[in-house]
Amino acid sequence: MISPEILGFIGGGIITASLIPQVHRVLKLKSAHDISLPFTLMLLIGLILWVNYGRLLNLTPVVLWNSISIGLVAVLFWAKLKYGRE
Amino acid sequence: MISPEILGFIGGGIITASLIPQVHRVLKLKSAHDISLPFTLMLLIGLILWVNYGRLLNLTPVVLWNSISIGLVAVLFWAKLKYGRE
Repeated sequence: MISPEILGFIGGGIITASLIPQVHRVLKLKSAHDISLPFTLMLLIGLILWVNYGRLLNLTPVVLWNSISIGLVAVLFWAKLKYGRE
Repeated sequence: MISPEILGFIGGGIITASLIPQVHRVLKLKSAHDISLPFTLMLLIGLILWVNYGRLLNLTPVVLWNSISIGLVAVLFWAKLKYGRE
């Protein structure tokens, strides 16, 4: 039986890693027309709250992966502002 | 001082809610060209693992919000296959 910690690390790692091809695609295409601005903004705010939730409960995977996600979503938000053409 | 549970509920709720404008945008535009297919797929797999992590540790907000997110990301994945034009 896999431990919850390992499951959290793998699951959170895949979720965070999923943002890499998304950021890469937007930067490669120089287009973020189909990306929603509220999506990137709400995601950023939610992730910041979520990191603090993880910190208060000492949930290492929550803190680790969501901190990295914040960086990746910040790039996506910047790319949306630059390439969004709304 | 806000309790971790409330912080988790609000943060997770905002993250899950962020997917609503993203799904809405793709369906409205009938275009998911800028959305990455690996993004939607990896996100789905990661969320499924993450729900099980939350279930094992009895983290109600993790289970609740990520379960709803799975439904929303499933729609995004379907929209990418339909409107992706890769």
